[in-house]
Amino acid sequence: MGDTNRQWRLAARPTGEPTHDTFELVEAGVPDPEHGEVLVRTIYQSVDPYMRGRMRDAESYAEPWEPGEPMRAGVVGEVVESRADRFDEGDVVTGDLLWAEYATATATELRRVDPSLAPVSTAVGVLGMPGVTAFHGFMDKGKPQAGDTVVVSAAAGAVGSVVGQLASAMGCDVIGIAGAEEKCDWLTDDLGFDAAVNYEEEDVGRAVAEAAPGGVDVYFDNVGGPVTDAVWPSLNDFARVVACGQISLYNATELPTGPRKLTDAVQKRLKIEGFIVRDYDRWGHALRRLGGLVRDGDLQYREHVIEGFENAPDAFLGLFEGINIGKTLVKVGEEPELP
Amino acid sequence: MGDTNRQWRLAARPTGEPTHDTFELVEAGVPDPEHGEVLVRTIYQSVDPYMRGRMRDAESYAEPWEPGEPMRAGVVGEVVESRADRFDEGDVVTGDLLWAEYATATATELRRVDPSLAPVSTAVGVLGMPGVTAFHGFMDKGKPQAGDTVVVSAAAGAVGSVVGQLASAMGCDVIGIAGAEEKCDWLTDDLGFDAAVNYEEEDVGRAVAEAAPGGVDVYFDNVGGPVTDAVWPSLNDFARVVACGQISLYNATELPTGPRKLTDAVQKRLKIEGFIVRDYDRWGHALRRLGGLVRDGDLQYREHVIEGFENAPDAFLGLFEGINIGKTLVKVGEEPELP
Repeated sequence: MGDTNRQWRLAARPTGEPTHDTFELVEAGVPDPEHGEVLVRTIYQSVDPYMRGRMRDAESYAEPWEPGEPMRAGVVGEVVESRADRFDEGDVVTGDLLWAEYATATATELRRVDPSLAPVSTAVGVLGMPGVTAFHGFMDKGKPQAGDTVVVSAAAGAVGSVVGQLASAMGCDVIGIAGAEEKCDWLTDDLGFDAAVNYEEEDVGRAVAEAAPGGVDVYFDNVGGPVTDAVWPSLNDFARVVACGQISLYNATELPTGPRKLTDAVQKRLKIEGFIVRDYDRWGHALRRLGGLVRDGDLQYREHVIEGFENAPDAFLGLFEGINIGKTLVKVGEEPELP
Repeated sequence: MGDTNRQWRLAARPTGEPTHDTFELVEAGVPDPEHGEVLVRTIYQSVDPYMRGRMRDAESYAEPWEPGEPMRAGVVGEVVESRADRFDEGDVVTGDLLWAEYATATATELRRVDPSLAPVSTAVGVLGMPGVTAFHGFMDKGKPQAGDTVVVSAAAGAVGSVVGQLASAMGCDVIGIAGAEEKCDWLTDDLGFDAAVNYEEEDVGRAVAEAAPGGVDVYFDNVGGPVTDAVWPSLNDFARVVACGQISLYNATELPTGPRKLTDAVQKRLKIEGFIVRDYDRWGHALRRLGGLVRDGDLQYREHVIEGFENAPDAFLGLFEGINIGKTLVKVGEEPELP
């Protein structure tokens, strides 16, 4: 290991859209693990939309990040020094660590990653937080039935692409909403979506209504705002809306307004439920199911890999441009060679 | 019985607020019951906010009323002619009949009312649709726990007043929102509410936040619009919002806008559920529970009785002025004397 350790820290809380000035690259020493801890060398660092919320000075389900402090991130890394019984040097692990080249963690915070099962990068993607989010959000909150019509926004994203494939595998009709032709093609050609709507090109409300002539039973919402407004009139009686993300609103500087939705909620007896994966502390069941689907080729995924730790802010900022397909992550260091 | 039968019909679909021109009084003959039917003389006719929805030419959970046709209403009446085995002349019954002095109904549409148990007027109030709405909406959708803080809008109304008392009986802290000092006094002095907020006089958001320093676990919403906006920031993580009515928006001519609420829904993992009592076809359980509470003096109610069938439109229009306390109903004919 080297003896330098770069960290990205929060330079200042962003107002509106984050910029490069939001981030500050700091040289820090490589920390020493204490008893029960390991030192992890970052291989992949995840960037995720929820991080925008941590940059706010607002009470939320997680503590806000403080300016001048390191930011946290899902990381896949290699144990390079262990003072914990459960892990040895060379083990690949994943956990909620730091935007950093090295970080220590207690053994209980980490999950072992088996490099022989799937590329280790998937541990922060289809076989990690986004995959588990899709699994529990869709299955537990969406309560899908075979034959239901399911609409997914940000359908080519890390979460949406999994939701749509789970829905399709269950015998639902699946309509994805995404912002580029290439994304729409991926959804329908490779992932088994029945239809895809390009929100940059089409009238979303009309396109969803045409693609779902019998109405929509489950709307898995990663986006919010006008896209959600457009889906709303197509919701059936007793439809379930899984409010998983609202990325279109995360950079708003004032509380945004839009059409009121609760009259429809009454009339149609909608069930609208907010969802955060960290409320589930046991991921084993979901990971086994997702892992089986990936192994059998029934769950496709794509990764948008940004090379180089120094480019982590670009990776994050790209999430709000909607140009990436699949899971966005940063390659920070080399993968260990398989034994 | 007389041989004339007045009916209120829908004269024209209202744009915005209904007016007297919305209604048309028509002389119709007294209908003859067919086999299996009874003829009912109306004693009390209910007016309810949901009726505004029926005046719209819009698909909904119930067919819209057609201009020129009679309107429907909850009625308590006396059987004056029976061609059904289950009912005899003189029986007091309730059901979904017409805005009319007389109407026929099939026996299966009617429920017998026992005049010895409670005033028969309660069959369209605390022991009828509004009471059952409160019971199932609050218990099944609100999922209250002892110790929860519950906020009810339109708390002095037919539904809200029952919700608040059920909540209080369960050991919840209850905050009612209403639009007059007399209503607020009734809530806190007679109904056991812990606090009442007068939305005409107070900053609702601040008042609710002060009355609920630990936040709000269940919001039972009959009102929508700015009152609901004001409650929203006080919702706790995992709060349940029962969207039972949105009376503040029923007369809107354009889709109203307001603050977007789904970002909070995600952050706080809210469960927002629309509720309509007609989805419950068995009311027996709720009515037995409510009847027991009324009998034991644990469930108070008030009725705002408008005398005279000719004044039914005024009774309905009054619902949107927010001046009535408790259940609004029209006294159309005399109650039969108890045997």
